[in-house]
Amino acid sequence: MPEVIFPLDSTKPFTEQKLTGHNRWHPEIPPVATLKRGESYRIDCREWFDGAIKNDDSADDIRDAPLNRVHALSGPFRIEGAEPGDLLIVDILDVGPIPQEEGPLAGQGWGYTGIFAQKNGGSFLVDQFPDAYKAVWDFRGGECTSRHIPGVKFTGMVHPGLMGTAPSSELLKTWNKREGDLIATDPQRVPPLALPPEPDAAILGSLTGADFDRVAGEGARTAPPRENGGNQDIKNFTKGSRVFYPVYVSGANLSMGDLHFSQGDGEITFCGGIEMGGFIDIHVDVIKGGMDTYGVSENAIFMPGRNGPVYSEWLAFSGTSVTLDGEQRYLDSHLSYQRAILHAIDYLAKFGWSKEQAYLLLGAAPIEGRFSGVVDIPNSCATVYLPTEIFDVDIRPSASGPMQVDPGMGAPRAMNPG
Amino acid sequence: MPEVIFPLDSTKPFTEQKLTGHNRWHPEIPPVATLKRGESYRIDCREWFDGAIKNDDSADDIRDAPLNRVHALSGPFRIEGAEPGDLLIVDILDVGPIPQEEGPLAGQGWGYTGIFAQKNGGSFLVDQFPDAYKAVWDFRGGECTSRHIPGVKFTGMVHPGLMGTAPSSELLKTWNKREGDLIATDPQRVPPLALPPEPDAAILGSLTGADFDRVAGEGARTAPPRENGGNQDIKNFTKGSRVFYPVYVSGANLSMGDLHFSQGDGEITFCGGIEMGGFIDIHVDVIKGGMDTYGVSENAIFMPGRNGPVYSEWLAFSGTSVTLDGEQRYLDSHLSYQRAILHAIDYLAKFGWSKEQAYLLLGAAPIEGRFSGVVDIPNSCATVYLPTEIFDVDIRPSASGPMQVDPGMGAPRAMNPG
Amino acid sequence: MPEVIFPLDSTKPFTEQKLTGHNRWHPEIPPVATLKRGESYRIDCREWFDGAIKNDDSADDIRDAPLNRVHALSGPFRIEGAEPGDLLIVDILDVGPIPQEEGPLAGQGWGYTGIFAQKNGGSFLVDQFPDAYKAVWDFRGGECTSRHIPGVKFTGMVHPGLMGTAPSSELLKTWNKREGDLIATDPQRVPPLALPPEPDAAILGSLTGADFDRVAGEGARTAPPRENGGNQDIKNFTKGSRVFYPVYVSGANLSMGDLHFSQGDGEITFCGGIEMGGFIDIHVDVIKGGMDTYGVSENAIFMPGRNGPVYSEWLAFSGTSVTLDGEQRYLDSHLSYQRAILHAIDYLAKFGWSKEQAYLLLGAAPIEGRFSGVVDIPNSCATVYLPTEIFDVDIRPSASGPMQVDPGMGAPRAMNPG
Amino acid sequence: MPEVIFPLDSTKPFTEQKLTGHNRWHPEIPPVATLKRGESYRIDCREWFDGAIKNDDSADDIRDAPLNRVHALSGPFRIEGAEPGDLLIVDILDVGPIPQEEGPLAGQGWGYTGIFAQKNGGSFLVDQFPDAYKAVWDFRGGECTSRHIPGVKFTGMVHPGLMGTAPSSELLKTWNKREGDLIATDPQRVPPLALPPEPDAAILGSLTGADFDRVAGEGARTAPPRENGGNQDIKNFTKGSRVFYPVYVSGANLSMGDLHFSQGDGEITFCGGIEMGGFIDIHVDVIKGGMDTYGVSENAIFMPGRNGPVYSEWLAFSGTSVTLDGEQRYLDSHLSYQRAILHAIDYLAKFGWSKEQAYLLLGAAPIEGRFSGVVDIPNSCATVYLPTEIFDVDIRPSASGPMQVDPGMGAPRAMNPG
Repeated sequence: MPEVIFPLDSTKPFTEQKLTGHNRWHPEIPPVATLKRGESYRIDCREWFDGAIKNDDSADDIRDAPLNRVHALSGPFRIEGAEPGDLLIVDILDVGPIPQEEGPLAGQGWGYTGIFAQKNGGSFLVDQFPDAYKAVWDFRGGECTSRHIPGVKFTGMVHPGLMGTAPSSELLKTWNKREGDLIATDPQRVPPLALPPEPDAAILGSLTGADFDRVAGEGARTAPPRENGGNQDIKNFTKGSRVFYPVYVSGANLSMGDLHFSQGDGEITFCGGIEMGGFIDIHVDVIKGGMDTYGVSENAIFMPGRNGPVYSEWLAFSGTSVTLDGEQRYLDSHLSYQRAILHAIDYLAKFGWSKEQAYLLLGAAPIEGRFSGVVDIPNSCATVYLPTEIFDVDIRPSASGPMQVDPGMGAPRAMNPG
Repeated sequence: MPEVIFPLDSTKPFTEQKLTGHNRWHPEIPPVATLKRGESYRIDCREWFDGAIKNDDSADDIRDAPLNRVHALSGPFRIEGAEPGDLLIVDILDVGPIPQEEGPLAGQGWGYTGIFAQKNGGSFLVDQFPDAYKAVWDFRGGECTSRHIPGVKFTGMVHPGLMGTAPSSELLKTWNKREGDLIATDPQRVPPLALPPEPDAAILGSLTGADFDRVAGEGARTAPPRENGGNQDIKNFTKGSRVFYPVYVSGANLSMGDLHFSQGDGEITFCGGIEMGGFIDIHVDVIKGGMDTYGVSENAIFMPGRNGPVYSEWLAFSGTSVTLDGEQRYLDSHLSYQRAILHAIDYLAKFGWSKEQAYLLLGAAPIEGRFSGVVDIPNSCATVYLPTEIFDVDIRPSASGPMQVDPGMGAPRAMNPG
Repeated sequence: MPEVIFPLDSTKPFTEQKLTGHNRWHPEIPPVATLKRGESYRIDCREWFDGAIKNDDSADDIRDAPLNRVHALSGPFRIEGAEPGDLLIVDILDVGPIPQEEGPLAGQGWGYTGIFAQKNGGSFLVDQFPDAYKAVWDFRGGECTSRHIPGVKFTGMVHPGLMGTAPSSELLKTWNKREGDLIATDPQRVPPLALPPEPDAAILGSLTGADFDRVAGEGARTAPPRENGGNQDIKNFTKGSRVFYPVYVSGANLSMGDLHFSQGDGEITFCGGIEMGGFIDIHVDVIKGGMDTYGVSENAIFMPGRNGPVYSEWLAFSGTSVTLDGEQRYLDSHLSYQRAILHAIDYLAKFGWSKEQAYLLLGAAPIEGRFSGVVDIPNSCATVYLPTEIFDVDIRPSASGPMQVDPGMGAPRAMNPG
Repeated sequence: MPEVIFPLDSTKPFTEQKLTGHNRWHPEIPPVATLKRGESYRIDCREWFDGAIKNDDSADDIRDAPLNRVHALSGPFRIEGAEPGDLLIVDILDVGPIPQEEGPLAGQGWGYTGIFAQKNGGSFLVDQFPDAYKAVWDFRGGECTSRHIPGVKFTGMVHPGLMGTAPSSELLKTWNKREGDLIATDPQRVPPLALPPEPDAAILGSLTGADFDRVAGEGARTAPPRENGGNQDIKNFTKGSRVFYPVYVSGANLSMGDLHFSQGDGEITFCGGIEMGGFIDIHVDVIKGGMDTYGVSENAIFMPGRNGPVYSEWLAFSGTSVTLDGEQRYLDSHLSYQRAILHAIDYLAKFGWSKEQAYLLLGAAPIEGRFSGVVDIPNSCATVYLPTEIFDVDIRPSASGPMQVDPGMGAPRAMNPG
């Protein structure tokens, strides 16, 4: 087991740990530790809401989830010898839930998937699913099941939803400018178009006083992925992956968190995948000058690991860029994927699951979401693939019609208003 | 070998064959033959441009490609017993290039990938690649190589780019209305937002006279995928797949064509994948009332085949929804995928290929394009995966920098204007 | 399609074709054609019994199968520039049943699996299955089913059971000596320990007269695999494979045949796999001096292709080296594999198939047979893996017990004596 | 994390733990604990030599390995409700090295592979490799490397080498009789044909006094696999597997141990795979009367997990049943596999590794060993597949010849005599 460079105590809040992480992006957040090239380290990670979500049968915690507090990130870590223009190599040696523990913190043998309510973040299908829902998943070795979604079991594809390097001061300004411009086009929108810097609930490592206040006022939110990697929610960042990040500041200032036990392509429920705390073992190295050498000035490139799970039977759904109201959009793959997902939900509902159960499942299980045709004017085509082997019943279409599952208690729904 | 229900003679144009197919969607195009439930058939398919593209080192044919003439479709086939509301089951038993032939027609041992010029269709990256280019691929068993893109070889994933049932009269009206409305928002756009019905070069099976004229004036173009399936360009419709289509007219009136030897997710160059003629062996059946039973009122659902190719090492690129000009867009996966593809092209260019060669390669090789984060406001994240094993050189990043390939003659570019 | 260097007419016997192949190994059998390094060729292949087995519901033809006549091999082919000490590279570009034909010859849309009778060859489980049985398989695209074994369907893994280079004169003498010595230890055994040279039914290409007689008296039988490759029955020699053969004579004198649509590891029924005629497209090249350079003085080495089928769910059985009579043998993996196979047969019989149906199935379907422990004195352990997805019913053990299939007419059994 | 039903303290010997396991098979060894059907448990496992092998650069410990002391097994566990005739279902939920520890005990971040000397057990290739060698492997997340075998890195396939139920009194007598009969055929053989009951170093749980002495004199050694499962060394018993064991005594009395970080098919070096201590999480259930219902009266059946590693490029070697001295054996797959392995060793030696390094590697890496032809008299054919992606250099044959690796210090060899 590698040296634990960032330890967490599951019984304490994120701000009362031995080392304090952060939840905003800013070049001036001081590194918590230094990593050497060619060395391996273990980094504990807090689940993104710092313990606010409970292992119970209510979705009120999802409805009231403290979005200003996310993401509880471990870091930043200074990498010895990394300078702007380099590529930082991060090998994900291992990643998993909180080891050897059971308890009330997500990651202690369980995790959760939530559908964010329209008034608190919203989700990919916010128009169809405006309310908050939750599903709790129990881990059993490498597999998971949920009392809120009976009839499915699948193997985890554990990965960090978020990892990235610190932005340079210039890059941060660029972010704040362009996102501010977008917000300005519809500032009252619910959910919002983007999240501006927010001093409330900011955590900035060891910063204090005026420095804290200034950085809290400038620091970019961690919700979106950006040039530095960040919250990419790529379900294929599994054990054995090698990721290359552009370096924008001296030391790279690498941070990570938002571990998922599993996630479907898209993290469609927003409070998505199966959220948990845990650990990640990484090995770091640097390709000097690699950004120019390889033409990688932004956004991570990576080589996914060769671990499974391997599924060989899939049922797939397709969608095109026509809205539910029948309006033709021009080559809109985002919309096409929404339509494909809606088709999958409608289909699963024929087997007895509620639509919310189906939606939560598609956010959590290792479904594949693919761009199919992106040029066939005016309709793009997107497809989503469900591994049929995760279902207890045979979900393939046949002349005998869909078998019926017992949906059990269903997925808890939050009472409104919050 | 199943009965050949739709034979083609490679030496004759599409309109001089024993049976005449079609290149528009309309419920009144008469079936060319009837298929029985539970039976298997072979259907020959013409390459989509009916032989207009040559096996040579010029891209002028791509620049001047007769878009009004596409797609040369085999069918429609009436399926005995299929009625509106049913699901039509099509098993793709086998699909391949024109068997046992060599010659000048795409599919006779070779195929092509083109980048459409801005003035003639455009492509996924039309702003960056406004001119026409071409690459010819030679088939060697299940694999292919191109003299225009040295240094790569890959296994085909043969599939029909287009398959679908006929629309009902009402559905056709819906299509024409909604697509017309879109065109009306910017009727002079180049390339256009959508393609309206076009009598020029229409092929409508056995229709003649006034019926021909009327249907030619109403028939929907075959470019986009729609509720009936159609030009979905799903690279995973390979041998062994089972596809379920909604049935909108009595007899279903199934048609197919646009075979690809291989295609990357998205068919990003538009004249994309590796285009060819060939054959497809299908088995048909019907789930009576299946549309309602399974909640599938539109868009095909399918189970992909279990054949390979299997690749275990990938290099992946990510992109987010910020334009090249730095403008922040709101959760635009289409843009994110463009940015990921552009990153891959920039990267490959560091190894010696021209950007056009890289672009053509990504359109043709079995790359995977995935939706990663689709909810992390304001940036969606898309990823594209390249199988590293298709390259003669090691394309993985390392401290030693990119090896250099000899790009050879390069991909032919069309002289302008056409 | 590559040049057809060895054509076969399905309506004529093997000895009345344009070019005559052979069914014995001898360095003096003259090449039928010359292949150039770096070129590709199509070679038609006759099914191994030259049409003696029929598509009917009797196993008498299996009981009386003319073993002296096998294997009907295409070749030998001289490879330009290949000399003793080189490694011959053979790329299997494509391989399949007889293209575009239906008819009474195995390979024309169908193939067969037989259990050889004890008196005519025997099989891996000859003590348990002394009589002759047959199953006919129908090909439907890449998949096959059998009216004699209902309830299963699987994807073919087409491969040549036999391919190899000609032995040198010295090597041939070595073979005849060592195999003769073995036979001499029990010359009356039924089935025999090995097959000596046999002039009866010998086919030796263009040889005639005294040369024919001499070579017929010396030529090694094609049943066993040997240093030159030969009848290795490696089910993984699929499309896309690259095989390296030692070269023992000038020109290498490559031959091939015994195509299988599919085969389980071991070809356990002897008349095994799914036998058929067809074609194979190969590309040849040479590594000069490669035998010494790579330390490959005997037995092919190879890189299997990356095509599927891909299965992800398996049910496996194990066996150890104790005989059915309870005798402990010392680390005998051959016996362990027999015991594992017998366990699988007993298991499948609980679902309603006859034991002969189960045995035929395990010989034909793509089962995996593996060496597990080979050192744990005194018991070796072997395992056999069945892909559960090929069965119509769920064959996994559960508390509800085995579902029952309708075994139909069963596998035809030959009446004795022949 | 499930309840730890069998804890081990890494700092104490196997006989000084809180609960004492065993190293012989006997129905009268008392259960250490009871497991409930439908429940999950964690069981710590000691490496098989109870800490006798060191993380150093000497093989003397392998030469002197205390064979009488193996295997240090955790158990036996009584399963509530299991009775003779039932099938015991064991789900391997998770399995891995000793969690969260580094140290001198195998499993604390490292493991070892040894070649047993002829005088102390011998190995699969004992005639070619009579001396003792060792390689130490360092774990880095899911992957491992060895300072004794530079140039390779691979992903672990962690599995228990040994798991099984207790024999009935009758079954134990059968074992002792048949193995004694075998030993009697050559009692002085080195290495021996089999291992008789051996009171020296016997560990028998809580047994004491006369009971201990009697059971120690009767208890079967744990080296071989037998009807009860036992030391099957099946590398595919990975996380996610479900195994079914016959039950011979009331309560089943399940035991397990001999964890491997990885192993090649066959565990060919005997002190094989990568040996380590660690943990295994299991879930147990019972199919009442399952032995008869499913025809499984002996030897485990199982469904392997769907986790990787996935490799798509392999280099394979074949062998036939002719001895190195040129003697023809009759269908001897054990010999064929030896010859295939020897071919692989000769080949790897051309790249600069010593033959002992190659042999150790093939024992530890996830190579696949398959039965190919088992009926082609007189030669069986066996094949062994090496995943090429585990090597730092390209090991595929080419015209340019083998690249050379630096073999470093090599694998330590023991000085003789011990």
